[in-house]
Amino acid sequence: MSTNPAPQVRLLVNGQDIDTVSALDRGLQYGDGLFETMSVLNGRPLHWQRHLQRLIHGCGQLGIPLPDVTALTIEAQRLCIGRNRAVLKLIITRGSGGRGYRCPADPAPTRIFALHSWPDYPENYWREGVRVRLCRIQLGSNPALAGLKHLNRLEHILARAEWDSDDIAEGLLFDRADHVIEGTMSNLFLVAAGQLVTPELSDCGVAGIMRDMIIESAGTSGLGCSVRPVSRADLLAADELLLCNSVIGVWPVRQLDQRQIRPGPITQRLMRALNNDND
Amino acid sequence: MSTNPAPQVRLLVNGQDIDTVSALDRGLQYGDGLFETMSVLNGRPLHWQRHLQRLIHGCGQLGIPLPDVTALTIEAQRLCIGRNRAVLKLIITRGSGGRGYRCPADPAPTRIFALHSWPDYPENYWREGVRVRLCRIQLGSNPALAGLKHLNRLEHILARAEWDSDDIAEGLLFDRADHVIEGTMSNLFLVAAGQLVTPELSDCGVAGIMRDMIIESAGTSGLGCSVRPVSRADLLAADELLLCNSVIGVWPVRQLDQRQIRPGPITQRLMRALNNDND
Repeated sequence: MSTNPAPQVRLLVNGQDIDTVSALDRGLQYGDGLFETMSVLNGRPLHWQRHLQRLIHGCGQLGIPLPDVTALTIEAQRLCIGRNRAVLKLIITRGSGGRGYRCPADPAPTRIFALHSWPDYPENYWREGVRVRLCRIQLGSNPALAGLKHLNRLEHILARAEWDSDDIAEGLLFDRADHVIEGTMSNLFLVAAGQLVTPELSDCGVAGIMRDMIIESAGTSGLGCSVRPVSRADLLAADELLLCNSVIGVWPVRQLDQRQIRPGPITQRLMRALNNDND
Repeated sequence: MSTNPAPQVRLLVNGQDIDTVSALDRGLQYGDGLFETMSVLNGRPLHWQRHLQRLIHGCGQLGIPLPDVTALTIEAQRLCIGRNRAVLKLIITRGSGGRGYRCPADPAPTRIFALHSWPDYPENYWREGVRVRLCRIQLGSNPALAGLKHLNRLEHILARAEWDSDDIAEGLLFDRADHVIEGTMSNLFLVAAGQLVTPELSDCGVAGIMRDMIIESAGTSGLGCSVRPVSRADLLAADELLLCNSVIGVWPVRQLDQRQIRPGPITQRLMRALNNDND
């Protein structure tokens, strides 16, 4: 992992070249908002339309007024132009106002773009796979928030604080019924009896864009993917495991706690199909 | 409720008279922080030491470095001086930095004070009691976060968005096991068979300062208070109900959904004991 002291970040807040937000913004006061994280390649955010669609869906779920999609698109282009490889994060909050938790009658959402430098994950994370641990903290369940990439992320922060070793790339999270849900920053797929499986996210977890793309890719390629509850026993018995998100694409898992796993043919096939082998 | 368009707020961010925070602050990015809300009376925040203690406990739970208590105390005094009646909110975040959810090795917490004007709740909320509804959204359970007044408040925002009528002062929240936990902005006590009872908060909910004070007051006065899981049936059968927080003190409940409740002698006795009858 990086030992660089200060990664470069370029910010755009409500279309302006400033790096602050109101201290009364509900994003800060309550985590009242959503975010998207995207790869930038050759000056363009990848899968922009999918990220926009998820953002619009999330705003609908939380009752945040739809952001101006044209303004967002222009601002994203403006930030990414000339950047070969970067990570773009977009936060939408409900803006300021309202008395306590009560939402303002006429909210003016805040939009924050942050362009980060590309993370320096080792090349062999894609080639040989990553080492993964099982987290102790359990995800709470709430169908009203499940699937959304919202700003209430303390569970994931506490999970990520469970380990410090750079040898471990990710931690897996379970719900209170001991079903595995996701990684702290990624979604999870497993291969069992030649079948691709990914945890159902109706009670908790973030429904990632790359997860959607893998489910679709598995469908069109004839492989298929089962979306269902995945027990700890299912996880431990898996023949292959892989992690995905919009920045990393796909990482095979080569070690789960103490157990070695051989990155297998279905993972390789998916990585080729998604063109996400980091070439 | 207020029809004032813009309540006056005075802000102090890291000791400075500014009203913005970095857009990269983890409070905004992830809700990675805690807050306290206090009454200000005659230029002083009430129960300051108790709020500090809860904040210090919360920082310990989340692994946020202990804030400089002397600086906090001086800043609180500086904001409150000359203010007869107001509400003081203090937010502590983990500050900026870290890669994704991973906490920075050496976090520099952000402290944000906001002094708000006193809310214009009707006088009869204290005298005659308030009307309360039962919320549909359920609280997720997480023992690692239960009790803390942290910045992940989307559940409470969605609950507060369930009603718009100014006739309803508060909504009650249940967990997924159908135990009542708290109000959106208050804790709850009930009286059953002459006994004071308040929900146990080991899985979810915010352990309020006023709740602590009522439990203590009930103990010293010989009344006693049972802290235990409270079912929906317990709630609906209660002889008296009351809500509390650090701003309102105690509000008797006069109506729960369609059921009328008579503010009773134990609520009156507690209100006298706490000197919180809004005189």
